[in-house]
Amino acid sequence: MGQREFEIIDEIRRSTARRAGVDVGIGDDAAVLAATSMPTLVTCDMLLEGIHFDRTSATPRQIGRKAMAVNLSDIAAMAGRPTAAVVAVGLPADAPRALAAELHQGIAEIASEFDVALIGGDTNRSNGGLVVCVTLLGVPTGCGPVLRSGARVGDTLCVTGSLGGSILGKHLMFTPRVGEAAWLHQNCSLHAMMDVSDGLGGDLHHILNESDVGAVLYARAIPISDAALQLANGDRQAALDRALDDGEDFELLFALPADEADRLVASQPLIQDWGVAIHRIGEITQDRGAFLDFGDRIEPLVRRGFVHAV
Amino acid sequence: MGQREFEIIDEIRRSTARRAGVDVGIGDDAAVLAATSMPTLVTCDMLLEGIHFDRTSATPRQIGRKAMAVNLSDIAAMAGRPTAAVVAVGLPADAPRALAAELHQGIAEIASEFDVALIGGDTNRSNGGLVVCVTLLGVPTGCGPVLRSGARVGDTLCVTGSLGGSILGKHLMFTPRVGEAAWLHQNCSLHAMMDVSDGLGGDLHHILNESDVGAVLYARAIPISDAALQLANGDRQAALDRALDDGEDFELLFALPADEADRLVASQPLIQDWGVAIHRIGEITQDRGAFLDFGDRIEPLVRRGFVHAV
Repeated sequence: MGQREFEIIDEIRRSTARRAGVDVGIGDDAAVLAATSMPTLVTCDMLLEGIHFDRTSATPRQIGRKAMAVNLSDIAAMAGRPTAAVVAVGLPADAPRALAAELHQGIAEIASEFDVALIGGDTNRSNGGLVVCVTLLGVPTGCGPVLRSGARVGDTLCVTGSLGGSILGKHLMFTPRVGEAAWLHQNCSLHAMMDVSDGLGGDLHHILNESDVGAVLYARAIPISDAALQLANGDRQAALDRALDDGEDFELLFALPADEADRLVASQPLIQDWGVAIHRIGEITQDRGAFLDFGDRIEPLVRRGFVHAV
Repeated sequence: MGQREFEIIDEIRRSTARRAGVDVGIGDDAAVLAATSMPTLVTCDMLLEGIHFDRTSATPRQIGRKAMAVNLSDIAAMAGRPTAAVVAVGLPADAPRALAAELHQGIAEIASEFDVALIGGDTNRSNGGLVVCVTLLGVPTGCGPVLRSGARVGDTLCVTGSLGGSILGKHLMFTPRVGEAAWLHQNCSLHAMMDVSDGLGGDLHHILNESDVGAVLYARAIPISDAALQLANGDRQAALDRALDDGEDFELLFALPADEADRLVASQPLIQDWGVAIHRIGEITQDRGAFLDFGDRIEPLVRRGFVHAV
């Protein structure tokens, strides 16, 4: 299926696969991955022009990077190790000739950085805008994948980095928290985890619903990014709203026993290797629902809509 | 990542997975497949409106079916057994509300027919046309996957079904030759195989290049479809050109020892269960290149462009 304008993928996928240590054979349009004794993690994200990116404000290389990075973040959310990817693209008829190569460069660079083999592709013309769809495979690390469903009453909620305002640049250049998640899984009792892609205020509900618990967030503890403050002209309440609502931060949100969270926040073990801080932002409660504690009052945390970064 | 208009996939993926006998857990946006002792086959195809289908001539259900079927055909090409799929879609803003559900119906019906678990999805708005991208995983059957690279000098080339004119309907409603390929792999010495998706005249070159051999096709033995004859107004030469050039037949092209091919063609083992005939259409030669033998003359088989079925 598909036109073959993007043959560069086919040309390089064998060498990339060898570099990443994945035993891969290519037959027809399908790839063959060697058997492992571990489960397979599978995730898939499609990025569309005008929805997830804009070619006037993002380069093809940045778009390619983002298409792979959002999938890496999904594997990180389970504390998995990414292994191999297939990439399908739709190239606009009016696209400059260099688009495919630059897009591929962005994909290949971050794939290489995270030891992901590009094992196959499908390239097509598009009558609409540019479309990039990456499916990423991985394997669990440590004692299996971390799911959203294991948060327990009394757990502390933590988040990496800072939140909000990703439209100013982070939505293109964020770091998928793959290594950070693996470290946490190996060294802590992670009960539940996910990546914050649609905004903390919305994404938290996934953990709460799937774990059948509630939560209280400490409003003053939410790490507000400089970008959110900038967009809010320094208004802390407006910036907090951005930290809760803006999407595409791709930070880790996780629940773990309170004493372990205390130790993490005191020792900040992710600073040295990854330059990212851990913040204690709330706790898991028996009563369902999500609330925001301002110290002097408690308000329901409304699940607000996520506005894509275009 | 992604909007969640298409929650129907998330809602049903657990039950579908159970029915298909795949042990699947859902965490964040990624799915977890249980470990197997077999290699993993991976294939991915993206279908775009205006390129691979047209919403004025194909129903959403047919489009969904096709998006899964082209991937099933890629797994069939390796004689694999399909197991699990992830589906990413871009839904036009002006699409009728029923589009997502009908699209999903088409995907789910053929997935169920081939025991494929729908394990995950990503749904987005599209500012262009409808986009559907399916990534399909599978496992090899018999003695491993059949690749394109094993054709040997003296092998006979065979093809299932008939070729050409798929635009009259087959491009939407073709049968992925999954069962047929598995039967052939179990009962014959398949040296090389692929699915004919871009036209026999073009696709054959993949087997020849990857096997480092040449081929002669018998012009009079190419099975010309009724649709090709109809489009050619009964002109056999024009119909033959369609059988060689038209894409999206999704039949199997395979190379095997001549004596086994003789037995297959005499016994026609795929008729009873699948209603499809096997045709002996040529032979593998030491001299590189592909030729068409008309009985009274031999011409080079030109690799012509594939015109998509829109």
